[in-house]
Amino acid sequence: MVEDTETPLPDKEQNFSEWYNEIVQRAELVDLRYGVKGFIVYRPNISTILRQTYRLFEDALDEYGHSVCNFPVVIPLEFFQKEADHIKGFSGEVFWITKAGDSELDKPMLLRPTSETAMYPLYAYWVRSYRDLPLKLYQSNTVYRYETKATKALIRGREFYWIEAHDVHRTSEDAVNQVKEDMEITINALHDQLGIPFLLMERPPWDRFAGANQTYAFDVLLPDKNVLQIATTHLLGENFSKAFEIMFEDEDGTKKYGQQTCFGMGISRIVATIISMHGDNYGLVLPFHVAPLQIIIVPIPKKGKNELITEKCEEVYQKLKDKGYRVKLDSSEERPGAKFYHWELLGVPIRLEIGPKDIEQGEITVFRRDKRERFQTKENQLIETIEQLRDDILKELRARREKDLEENTREVKNKEEFLEIAKNKGGFIKIEFCDNVKCAEIIKEETGGYEVRGKLFGEKEKPKDKCIICGEKAKSIVYVAKPY
Amino acid sequence: MVEDTETPLPDKEQNFSEWYNEIVQRAELVDLRYGVKGFIVYRPNISTILRQTYRLFEDALDEYGHSVCNFPVVIPLEFFQKEADHIKGFSGEVFWITKAGDSELDKPMLLRPTSETAMYPLYAYWVRSYRDLPLKLYQSNTVYRYETKATKALIRGREFYWIEAHDVHRTSEDAVNQVKEDMEITINALHDQLGIPFLLMERPPWDRFAGANQTYAFDVLLPDKNVLQIATTHLLGENFSKAFEIMFEDEDGTKKYGQQTCFGMGISRIVATIISMHGDNYGLVLPFHVAPLQIIIVPIPKKGKNELITEKCEEVYQKLKDKGYRVKLDSSEERPGAKFYHWELLGVPIRLEIGPKDIEQGEITVFRRDKRERFQTKENQLIETIEQLRDDILKELRARREKDLEENTREVKNKEEFLEIAKNKGGFIKIEFCDNVKCAEIIKEETGGYEVRGKLFGEKEKPKDKCIICGEKAKSIVYVAKPY
Repeated sequence: MVEDTETPLPDKEQNFSEWYNEIVQRAELVDLRYGVKGFIVYRPNISTILRQTYRLFEDALDEYGHSVCNFPVVIPLEFFQKEADHIKGFSGEVFWITKAGDSELDKPMLLRPTSETAMYPLYAYWVRSYRDLPLKLYQSNTVYRYETKATKALIRGREFYWIEAHDVHRTSEDAVNQVKEDMEITINALHDQLGIPFLLMERPPWDRFAGANQTYAFDVLLPDKNVLQIATTHLLGENFSKAFEIMFEDEDGTKKYGQQTCFGMGISRIVATIISMHGDNYGLVLPFHVAPLQIIIVPIPKKGKNELITEKCEEVYQKLKDKGYRVKLDSSEERPGAKFYHWELLGVPIRLEIGPKDIEQGEITVFRRDKRERFQTKENQLIETIEQLRDDILKELRARREKDLEENTREVKNKEEFLEIAKNKGGFIKIEFCDNVKCAEIIKEETGGYEVRGKLFGEKEKPKDKCIICGEKAKSIVYVAKPY
Repeated sequence: MVEDTETPLPDKEQNFSEWYNEIVQRAELVDLRYGVKGFIVYRPNISTILRQTYRLFEDALDEYGHSVCNFPVVIPLEFFQKEADHIKGFSGEVFWITKAGDSELDKPMLLRPTSETAMYPLYAYWVRSYRDLPLKLYQSNTVYRYETKATKALIRGREFYWIEAHDVHRTSEDAVNQVKEDMEITINALHDQLGIPFLLMERPPWDRFAGANQTYAFDVLLPDKNVLQIATTHLLGENFSKAFEIMFEDEDGTKKYGQQTCFGMGISRIVATIISMHGDNYGLVLPFHVAPLQIIIVPIPKKGKNELITEKCEEVYQKLKDKGYRVKLDSSEERPGAKFYHWELLGVPIRLEIGPKDIEQGEITVFRRDKRERFQTKENQLIETIEQLRDDILKELRARREKDLEENTREVKNKEEFLEIAKNKGGFIKIEFCDNVKCAEIIKEETGGYEVRGKLFGEKEKPKDKCIICGEKAKSIVYVAKPY
């Protein structure tokens, strides 16, 4: 039980960063006192949300024909060195294991920063014939990067929780379809289950994953109007299959390189997004699907009636449990008000209050966390009410966040306007652009960190004007934002 | 699909080690070509069994009031050095991270060999009052030990998959009850779900976990008559709580040290045991509960009837899927015989064969993998048949393994008899013993590795005679066996 029920949280809209730092600790999500920079402890409240979020994506991957696998956390040096761009991209940020017991290792090993170079040497053994394709594997694991920027719980650390899927296809067309499938999985989860709107970007060439031909990324807008990349899917072409000799004999007997894709779902960042987007000044607001506890029952005691109240609470609890809901009956000694405070802080989507009046009228008091609204429902309609609320809550959360995204995505026509918005408003800024990295660098310099995040995937609109930076003919319409 | 359907597996009873090494590769469970000693790759077939086994224990831990948490994979040196016995026990076998990017770390970190020293510094912050107790947390993770003995897939490696639960209690009585609860969880899973018999041992003082006052271990007998430790629970007393200052204010205002326990469930070893114990010369035999695929449906084609057969197979498939079974319809182009071979190798507990005759008679042909027996069931009794089979298979597997254990547990009265059995039979040898480590060392030396595994937990029988080694008055009845 949280001790301090008096001090309000910092205001989320006014001071998101303080609000975030405070909520992750006050809701007992993480502990930052582990003593190694960038490594934090995940307490039960958030570990359960992480688990639900993992399962959401794992179930979808399974459904779409992926299989789970597990590769070691260490990568031998000779595997890591096989793909040149990949080494360049990652070698500055890996952790090295050089000793075991009292002896120096003959060859150092690294902690995986991502698993391409761990998995692909084995893929070379497994892929022989076109009949072995597609090969679609994923692992749910942690990866390690020696991050030098400031760390922030769940958003940027040196150990992060994700799922990585690595696929080999027969043709580049199949690979392109795989990337679309990856997008579909992500869109379904973010939109249909988590109420998280995003922009799906095709990253510019200078911002692709190390070793990829094309990188597509899901960018979300946090309340401070900065953007966070939470999932990516990449067309790797033959870059890795050539380096790792992943070849197959096609139906016609010719030897071909596999067409590869990889797909990363940043589970800790997705959870950070859930916290950041949906939370309010009373604490977390969790979508029904990933809430560790979906329904909390609070008895409203009254002298002389408490036996009756307890009985009714237990009956309702059992009924909901039997229906498969994650439900708890809070029969602790605290005052109802303290219980309300506590479970609101933890973001439980639905609270049921049961007191003597409710029982008399055959009703139950329902409190929905998202709107902080109370209403009565007939006891015999409770299940229908909850089913309905589950959808309503998701719709409500999604609508709020879609409004935020829309209000904070602004089209500008010239550099002055652009700089003004970058300076004073933040969010996504839509511009006409020459596709030249030099202009991207100018943007970054003059705005203190804004980046060209890329073109909107599937964008049909064509550029009609000039690049707002250099004045050359625009080649595309891109979105610019300040990343985490 | 497995290519080689002709070469039989080595005989399991005659040559367990070859059989094991072959089955883990032929059933595509693991790949040993990762290039770092003791680190192996877990392919989809086994990753799914691992996942099911994890969930079995996780669900039980949740049910018994534990909460999930996640601690970093790295442990800072200063945490690791806090408990003297623990350092002594583990420092020779840890992996050290000394570099990140291009720079040497100021302080080296180690990969966790187990998480006491990662978790307990935080426990010191979290435990303040008796109201915070019991604290019951677990994590499902991997741990790292620089193992110098010969490695064997899933049985002994440098990276292993387990669950570790770490609890703090108010009184030593509560701690003892916790250990009993840990035993109950393990017994339920092993006995009721996996059909694995075991001896539950109280380890002798010289074989306790580094830092524990008492160690209880689940030993199983593999087909080569050697024993494998698959789960342990430890009474830590105040050893760690003193070192890490885990203190609480009791109800009466006095400051006390927490009474600790920890509990390890060796998931990879439990899966190794499932493979080893239940498998036969045709491949894996999986208990229903952890089988990735519980039911495989194989159509038996017949010219002119194939549309009808496909339709019926799909109907049955959908019915079983809707009931929540993990079921697959194998409609590939292979011959039925090749399909039978493949799914038997993978240990699918139940196979349904559906051909024209079956359909005519309103029946389905059922094959149970454990007994390799075929029988007919009425289509409208299929669900009942499967429900019944599920229990029958478990009973059958358990009965076989209990028989093995019984037949390979032998009581001996003197040293000659003991040495003869150790040399020629293996298994558990029950002896009267003086409790002196010197006699345990003599046993080890004269038998080439047999160890005193401890007293049976809850043993009521008292020693009546002399220690079979030194001839002094016996203090206890112990079990001796050759460990992996």
